[in-house]
This record gives sequence, structure tokens and C-alpha cells, in this order.
Amino acid sequence: MAHIELGVDETQYPGINGPLIFRPETAKPLSELAEVLLRAPHSLTAGERELIAAYVSGLNECTFCCSSHSAFAAAQLHGGMTVVEQVRANLDEAPVSDKLRALLRIAGAVQDSGRKVTVELVELAREHGATDLEIHDTVLIAAAFCMYNRYVDGLGTLAPDDPALYLGAAERIVERGYLD
Amino acid sequence: MAHIELGVDETQYPGINGPLIFRPETAKPLSELAEVLLRAPHSLTAGERELIAAYVSGLNECTFCCSSHSAFAAAQLHGGMTVVEQVRANLDEAPVSDKLRALLRIAGAVQDSGRKVTVELVELAREHGATDLEIHDTVLIAAAFCMYNRYVDGLGTLAPDDPALYLGAAERIVERGYLD
Repeated sequence: MAHIELGVDETQYPGINGPLIFRPETAKPLSELAEVLLRAPHSLTAGERELIAAYVSGLNECTFCCSSHSAFAAAQLHGGMTVVEQVRANLDEAPVSDKLRALLRIAGAVQDSGRKVTVELVELAREHGATDLEIHDTVLIAAAFCMYNRYVDGLGTLAPDDPALYLGAAERIVERGYLD
Repeated sequence: MAHIELGVDETQYPGINGPLIFRPETAKPLSELAEVLLRAPHSLTAGERELIAAYVSGLNECTFCCSSHSAFAAAQLHGGMTVVEQVRANLDEAPVSDKLRALLRIAGAVQDSGRKVTVELVELAREHGATDLEIHDTVLIAAAFCMYNRYVDGLGTLAPDDPALYLGAAERIVERGYLD
């Protein structure tokens, strides 16, 4: 049960959904930020950006966000959940492009602290073709999930075990996005 | 110098200002979130909410954000910068209400990890009169500054030393807010 009375049935509105309904004034910018970062037209695919979100959520051990964004990434990535799990288990060996691997390393540094992003990490990403916009958005996606993860867990919300729930959410997100 | 080409003179647009200009699509929800959390009408004063932001930014060792929000808190809090510095140096002994102290303890837990917010921390805040909305917003302010701090430092932006710069920014924020 969440730390505060969210006014919803948490089994119907698990994770971030309850807090978003509880506080529509903050839900609006939170949802808009996710939509711009993860779904707006971009040189990184939606699957690649969701993978960054899933990777950071895994590092933060946020069960609800990691399960959600792993499912959202898998639904939109060539290679599906196998690639998501390989990235989370061993980034060095995972079958992703060198550019995406370098961006995921930047995301992992941000998860620890913004001050852990080094010139070397950024140069490596750039050597593999990353643009300034891709580097910017990787830093902000990673930073934003350090927020969403803390929001979801800091309020003690429910993180269901049933994988079907996250697959259903993935279908809705792929079809309708974060503003629906 | 920032890790990416922000397209601005960083001495004129230090810290988060450069990235906000570089990427207006994400600047919009980021600024709206700050405005709702820190400035909209609320049972916690703007000074108290800025103090939570400054406290978390200090724990994250984000020089630009901590200097900025310490100045914004000081400009709006009874007791000014002395109280801000006392909270940051020793929360147990700082001259703030028991409710605000309990909320700051929740914020400190969130800064470490959302999973560090315990039932006991929440109950203590409630015993001292904190409402569900105040607890919600404390968690989200703390979580949001774990994002803003990582955004600012993850891009390697400039954090000026001159206190006058932060005092000037405080005047503008108190007068015009985050959407200007």
C-alpha cells in the first residue's frame, strides 16, 4: 500500500499511475517530458530511448519502472526482450551498436551522479557517431528516470509481479503514448 | 565548458540555462514542473519548498543548483541564508518546524533512493501535521532535483563562484518565476 492515500485502487493503477491521478498539476509536465524524450521524432528510435530508460531504472532497482520500460523497449526494439536483458546483464557484450553502448555508458554514469560523466565518455560516444542532441537527450532521459524511479518508490507504490500487466501497458504506450 | 555545444555564452547562461535554451522542447515541461512544485499556491511556502530543493541539491553536490536554490530559499524564508546553511549543516538542530524537519528527512531519503523512504519517516511527518499532498510534493521535489542536478552536472555546465549572480537570479525568480 502506498505511503499516502492516492484515492485509487492500486491494483488497477499500480506504480506511477496512482500518483499521476492524485496530482494532475504535476502529472501534466511529467507526462509531457516522457512523451518528448521517449516518443517524439528523433534520430534515436523509441526502442533505443526506452532501453536507456529501462537500463537506468534497473540500476535504480525500481521494479515498476524497470518492468514497464523493459516491456516498452522490447516491444519496439529489433531483438525484443532478449536484447533488453542482455544490456541489463552485461552491457559490454550486449548486441547493440557501439553508439548505443557508449550512450548507455553515459546514462549509467548519470544514474550514479551527474559528476561521473567524463569528457572521455562523451568523446567515445561522439567517435561512434553520437550527436550533441543524442548526448543531451541521453543525459536527460537518465536524469529523468532518476526522478521517476524515486517518485514511484518514494511513495511506496505497488509494483505488480504479473508480466502480462506490463505487456498490456506496452501495447497502450506504443499505440497511444504518454499523454493519453 | 559544457560537454556539448550549447550555442550560448555560458558565462551569460550558466548551469541549467544553456541546456534549457539548447532544447526548448524539453525546457517547457522542465520549467512547468519547477513552477508547479516550487511556486504554485500551496500549504508549504515557496521558501520552504525551495529549501527542500536546496537541501537535496546540496546532498547531490550540485554546485549550481545548490547555490541557486539556497539563494531562492533565503530570499523567501524567515531567517534567510542563516537558516538555509543551518539546515544543510545540521538538520537535527536547525531552527525549522518539526513538520518541515520531518519532510526534509523524507527528502534526504529520496535523494539516496526512493526505497529508503520508510513508513516511520512518513508517520513522523504526519504526526507533525504534514498532509498527504505535502508528503507527495516533498517526495516529488526531492526526486525532481535528483533529475535537475544530474542534468546540470551530467552536461558539465558552468557553475559560477560569484554569489552576486545567484542573488540576481533569486530576485528574478521571486518576481517572475520559472516560466519567464
